[in-house]
Amino acid sequence: MSIPVRILGIDPGLRRTGWGVVTATGTKLAYVDCGVVTSDGDLPLALRLRELYEGISRIVAAFRPDEVSVEETFVNKDAQATLKLGHARAVALLVPALAGVPVYEYAANLIKKTVAGSGHAEKTQIQAMVKFLLPKAEFKLADAADALAIAITHNSHRGTHALKRSHLPAGVSGPGAARIAAALARS
Amino acid sequence: MSIPVRILGIDPGLRRTGWGVVTATGTKLAYVDCGVVTSDGDLPLALRLRELYEGISRIVAAFRPDEVSVEETFVNKDAQATLKLGHARAVALLVPALAGVPVYEYAANLIKKTVAGSGHAEKTQIQAMVKFLLPKAEFKLADAADALAIAITHNSHRGTHALKRSHLPAGVSGPGAARIAAALARS
Repeated sequence: MSIPVRILGIDPGLRRTGWGVVTATGTKLAYVDCGVVTSDGDLPLALRLRELYEGISRIVAAFRPDEVSVEETFVNKDAQATLKLGHARAVALLVPALAGVPVYEYAANLIKKTVAGSGHAEKTQIQAMVKFLLPKAEFKLADAADALAIAITHNSHRGTHALKRSHLPAGVSGPGAARIAAALARS
Repeated sequence: MSIPVRILGIDPGLRRTGWGVVTATGTKLAYVDCGVVTSDGDLPLALRLRELYEGISRIVAAFRPDEVSVEETFVNKDAQATLKLGHARAVALLVPALAGVPVYEYAANLIKKTVAGSGHAEKTQIQAMVKFLLPKAEFKLADAADALAIAITHNSHRGTHALKRSHLPAGVSGPGAARIAAALARS
């Protein structure tokens, strides 16, 4: 039998970090909520990271996800942009890790392929597919839609790797870990 | 008159983050302590960042610095390495920001120039100068010496920019901020 799992997807960005929450029961998905966490570009970097930390912490505390999935950073030619994204992404990985929630990472082209059938899908295709898979989803910003796509991707792939021990190291636990352990015991 | 200021220098790295604490009274420096915070390379990235977060948090809690200085990331041709460093650096910036301690950033060549007189100084020259400026300093690893060099650099430059309002934004305070305000009132 399938146990409902609450998944938080995060699309990290220094200016805008998208987030989306879904509940998955097997392959059946239900929309919960989505939005963006922003940081003030006029502040020094340390304080911008604090804003993201506090925003993502509020989301994790409010929705208590069992599992979190984060987009892998696309390393592009602009090293300065890669670095900025790396700073924001570190906060997106750190917050759930501090809360004891398992974190999974997915490459951008795998997310596109999973949700829209092609690793080169356009933003608008992703949004249309997210709306199709989660009809109740309401998003004004692409970042929130992308975050939902990341959550959907995790649910499609969690069967293949989410139960790996390496993702549940000693000392890290959480509701997701307990549910996975229960599922393993039953299987 | 000069007020003693405790400065924590951080040299961020995903595997090893160096840290060094000095007390500065005007240009007079006194060594306090130094070391490294490490993360386990076998763990997933999120958990490695948690290890750095917890390690740096312990340093900040133990030494209660008035000001923190962090080396700016050198953006090199290896985008993947730049990204890894960006993740570690985000944690080094975030921890003091969460504690309300002002954070300053310095480029690697400015640190070398300040401590050893040349922006192209070798590691061994940096270590020799740190030992000359802080005779009581004991460091086994270059990362700890680099962190002390970053703290020394901040003290050399804080007169020129540390009192800028931009570094003490609304809502962020701490012992350093209070001391700076007191010094300004007296000057």
